[in-house]
Amino acid sequence: MLRTHTCGELRLNDAGKTVTLCGWVQKSRDLGGMTFIDLRDRYGITQLAFNMDSDESLCLAARKLGREFVLKVTGLVKERESKNMQIPTGEIEIVVSSFEVLNESVTPPFTIEENTDGGDDLRMKYRYLDLRRASVRANLQLRHQVAKQTRAYLDAKEFIEVETPVLIKSTPEGARDFVVPSRMNPGEFYALPQSPQTFKQLLMVSGFDKYYQIVKCFRDEDLRADRQPEFTQIDCEMSFVEQEDVLHMFEGLVKHLFKTVKGVDIESLPRMPYADAMRYYGSDKPDTRFDMKFVKLNEVVKGKNFKVFDDADLVVGICVKGCADYTRKQLDELTDFVKRPQIGASGLVYARVNNDGSIKSSVDKFYDEAALKLWTEKCQAQPGDLILVLAGEKEKTRKALSELRLEMGTRLGLRDKNKFSCLWVVDFPLLEFNGEEGRYFAMHHPFTSPKPEDLYLINQMLREHREEILTDRSPGQIKLPRANAYDMVINGVEVGGGSVRIYNKELQSKMFELLGFSQEEAQKQFGFLMDAFQYGAPPHAGIAFGFDRLCSLFGGSDTIRDFIAFPKNNSGRDVMIDAPSSIDEKQLKELNISLQA
Amino acid sequence: MLRTHTCGELRLNDAGKTVTLCGWVQKSRDLGGMTFIDLRDRYGITQLAFNMDSDESLCLAARKLGREFVLKVTGLVKERESKNMQIPTGEIEIVVSSFEVLNESVTPPFTIEENTDGGDDLRMKYRYLDLRRASVRANLQLRHQVAKQTRAYLDAKEFIEVETPVLIKSTPEGARDFVVPSRMNPGEFYALPQSPQTFKQLLMVSGFDKYYQIVKCFRDEDLRADRQPEFTQIDCEMSFVEQEDVLHMFEGLVKHLFKTVKGVDIESLPRMPYADAMRYYGSDKPDTRFDMKFVKLNEVVKGKNFKVFDDADLVVGICVKGCADYTRKQLDELTDFVKRPQIGASGLVYARVNNDGSIKSSVDKFYDEAALKLWTEKCQAQPGDLILVLAGEKEKTRKALSELRLEMGTRLGLRDKNKFSCLWVVDFPLLEFNGEEGRYFAMHHPFTSPKPEDLYLINQMLREHREEILTDRSPGQIKLPRANAYDMVINGVEVGGGSVRIYNKELQSKMFELLGFSQEEAQKQFGFLMDAFQYGAPPHAGIAFGFDRLCSLFGGSDTIRDFIAFPKNNSGRDVMIDAPSSIDEKQLKELNISLQA
Repeated sequence: MLRTHTCGELRLNDAGKTVTLCGWVQKSRDLGGMTFIDLRDRYGITQLAFNMDSDESLCLAARKLGREFVLKVTGLVKERESKNMQIPTGEIEIVVSSFEVLNESVTPPFTIEENTDGGDDLRMKYRYLDLRRASVRANLQLRHQVAKQTRAYLDAKEFIEVETPVLIKSTPEGARDFVVPSRMNPGEFYALPQSPQTFKQLLMVSGFDKYYQIVKCFRDEDLRADRQPEFTQIDCEMSFVEQEDVLHMFEGLVKHLFKTVKGVDIESLPRMPYADAMRYYGSDKPDTRFDMKFVKLNEVVKGKNFKVFDDADLVVGICVKGCADYTRKQLDELTDFVKRPQIGASGLVYARVNNDGSIKSSVDKFYDEAALKLWTEKCQAQPGDLILVLAGEKEKTRKALSELRLEMGTRLGLRDKNKFSCLWVVDFPLLEFNGEEGRYFAMHHPFTSPKPEDLYLINQMLREHREEILTDRSPGQIKLPRANAYDMVINGVEVGGGSVRIYNKELQSKMFELLGFSQEEAQKQFGFLMDAFQYGAPPHAGIAFGFDRLCSLFGGSDTIRDFIAFPKNNSGRDVMIDAPSSIDEKQLKELNISLQA
Repeated sequence: MLRTHTCGELRLNDAGKTVTLCGWVQKSRDLGGMTFIDLRDRYGITQLAFNMDSDESLCLAARKLGREFVLKVTGLVKERESKNMQIPTGEIEIVVSSFEVLNESVTPPFTIEENTDGGDDLRMKYRYLDLRRASVRANLQLRHQVAKQTRAYLDAKEFIEVETPVLIKSTPEGARDFVVPSRMNPGEFYALPQSPQTFKQLLMVSGFDKYYQIVKCFRDEDLRADRQPEFTQIDCEMSFVEQEDVLHMFEGLVKHLFKTVKGVDIESLPRMPYADAMRYYGSDKPDTRFDMKFVKLNEVVKGKNFKVFDDADLVVGICVKGCADYTRKQLDELTDFVKRPQIGASGLVYARVNNDGSIKSSVDKFYDEAALKLWTEKCQAQPGDLILVLAGEKEKTRKALSELRLEMGTRLGLRDKNKFSCLWVVDFPLLEFNGEEGRYFAMHHPFTSPKPEDLYLINQMLREHREEILTDRSPGQIKLPRANAYDMVINGVEVGGGSVRIYNKELQSKMFELLGFSQEEAQKQFGFLMDAFQYGAPPHAGIAFGFDRLCSLFGGSDTIRDFIAFPKNNSGRDVMIDAPSSIDEKQLKELNISLQA
């Protein structure tokens, strides 16, 4: 080793030792007779001292060292005169007797500090320098911890980590695949997995009983701020279990992770049916760090000649505690917020409950004090509270109010990143109607099993599908079968989801038919899985967690990119290595493909 | 859970308990009044007992259960009358009170037994059934153990696991890349990594200090028996270290793995210079489970009018202990062996040292007893030993004798799969001449640093390269610089290799020039790395282990395929899911590519 110690480990009781350290020049200060350099490595920062009186030439040499030079220094550990109790090594310094410049550095394009002067694009291009910053490194260290503790928990529960292949087969169901031309099989392509779903199910058929894998997955989707073309999943599957067993096992995982990585005890992981999540939060991933539940007001607002409410499918409000003193300007801001195209409400109604108990609303023309009293009772509003109400078509209105609720939570500081509220959302619908494509899609994926008590609904839908009358009815009229599917939601973020799977060839085949697959298509794409079900497939269920997202949540960040060593930008480019890039004509030829003009 | 216990855990002291098990019907036997079924799961086998007298209808129902049916059974644990001490559950059986068929099975295409009747192709197609066999499952469990213990060791040594990207940039140096067309960047392609080499070096530039990753890598090469297009590496890198530190750290890893996974103590890990490995074993990955070193015989054989030896660059032999009684037929077999085109020797000379001390050779015409005596002295041959000699051009002859040595080792049972002999091969040449392409290639890769004392040779070669006279001389005439590169070899298998890296832009740039890169090419492909070296790159070194190979070695198998859950065949196909496959015209269009006619 070029060093005897790291820059993070020397303490007062090491005083008197001669040590050798290696690291980077974080900063240097010349104070007349003395020069101090902060030497940095992964483990910390140690102060180096050079004295003009005792060794002028060494001190002068030290003054020439620039930021980010790589040094190997030898010297004596000494108690500092002015201690810095902010850092673990702050009680000592190294009185340097000799040093060697292991490598020089040109001036970095931005400062390697917590509050760097580098913009996003520059830091992406020089990601290897951005990774030198303590907070970015800490994010990746946290990621390592989460992975390590995930494995510790699952290993202890007798799960086996099995690697599934990366070069697999393209299937049109789901998102778009990345594909890989096969040189040895001209005209044919591999696909990169969007998840190891079918392979983990085959492992259950193989009797592996409990499987997991921390695994890269790929989706060729148009990227948004928080999406990456490659991402990592904690992928799990179990045999001979029911939904309750899976929830129990992975509640355990999440509690273990919070405890070991964050030192936080998660007391409870309540379950919330999908229908309740939609009814009370307007979202299948409610942020339950704060209450502010939806209150349906249809009964108390109708028949007062306020056309907006009278015509509305749903009139629904939230009670915002202590915001009765919101100014006209603030209320206008909220109205603008809900009217933004992404949210799409046509307007916002409010009612203030003043401290004296009187109520003032934006619709006083239609609702007198007695009528408004009914609102406040329904909303359990107290003096000082503000009621915000939206109205319109049910789903759209819920969605808009969900956004408004989150906005109010943020404004009131109720969404503390250091507070964690976890829950399971359960009883998802098995199917959802896609208006654009005019057919039903699997809400989770086509391998999810319906609840046994709702099987009759599948048969009913299938009958109508075969008679080609299924889509004649509006989706709202159809009672949808519920799935044995579940999502884990933390602080309003869906961190994981899974389901009990179909393990019977006939039912799986019915599902494909209902989803619009011809028998040939189903056989071509998923024949191997349906064949496998014929050879004694056990009942099984599983879950997958978004590992990047879980890490960002633990790290208190909204963006997964901060927790990926070498992320891609929104056009799917790695601007550091400049990928993707063009390839040789010779390579194309070998792969039997050509570029389209 | 559908079960109270697994099929592997019940013991005599569980007798009297009512339990519920789930699993597969391994086999069933009808013995008149009784029916016995072996129920199998991942954890073991438990015997189920059905009695015609006590419950006729249940017993008759049990008799209808076929192989691989999936059952849930409830019954009483009872001490067996005839115990089977071969299996851990062999002292008990379950007297079944009720059972449920969770799933039926059609007849499997081969038997799920140790000695299955299924051929390779059939077992690949139904891999999910092959994975049910105990030995195949054990292989993957071993793999999990090796991964787990690798992480345990490296975590304890403060290595951080960092995930590097899978969608990177294609570079023509090295093997052929798999590429991925980018939809969002028309005409451009990602490549799948052949190794995370440049990324791990960038992580060192970032100050990560100690990195590892168990990671999938990809090579689009023509496949041989023991190669897969996707494979797994244990990839590691360290900063502020010298070669010795890396060897020490990863000796520790290998010893830890042998101890924890195999229960084997590896006493020592000797180092052998590349030159010695070639001189004494004719291979850079010698199998040192047995001795049988090469003995150069040039001095004692020349000048006896035996033209084959007189003309030969190298005459070299091995002494095979106790094989003086080899018959004419056996010796002819060996001659045929070395004359096979893959080996390519023109013939084999032998000398038997008979038990009475007399010597009989195949070249008695040229060598009398006294002359042969010199051979036996040189080879330290004893009465009863057999000397085998090859002659010809140096490299080819060494290679052929290496094969013969391994063959003799196998014949003599000296290559016991339960014995492990590990060593480091060090001091590799930095470069090797490729006659076909008429230029020098990096023996390890272009990022490997020359030994400092051999730097002058680089400069010398570079001068001649610039004057375009480098390749005028035959490679044998050039003194090649040695690299700080090392391979770990176990039982004649290269399980890992690495090097101290270049961390200086100028030297890296010289290396690319010497390897025939134009400055533009070097900048386009590796500019990001050379740029990074300008910002304070630390000295660093690393290693990568072939994880699949390491597992197969631990498992006592010659083929890595047995240790991969879903391997591909020699044409790169997954015959189970039938990948690669054709994709839609729509997909091609989106990707801006078309198939070549």
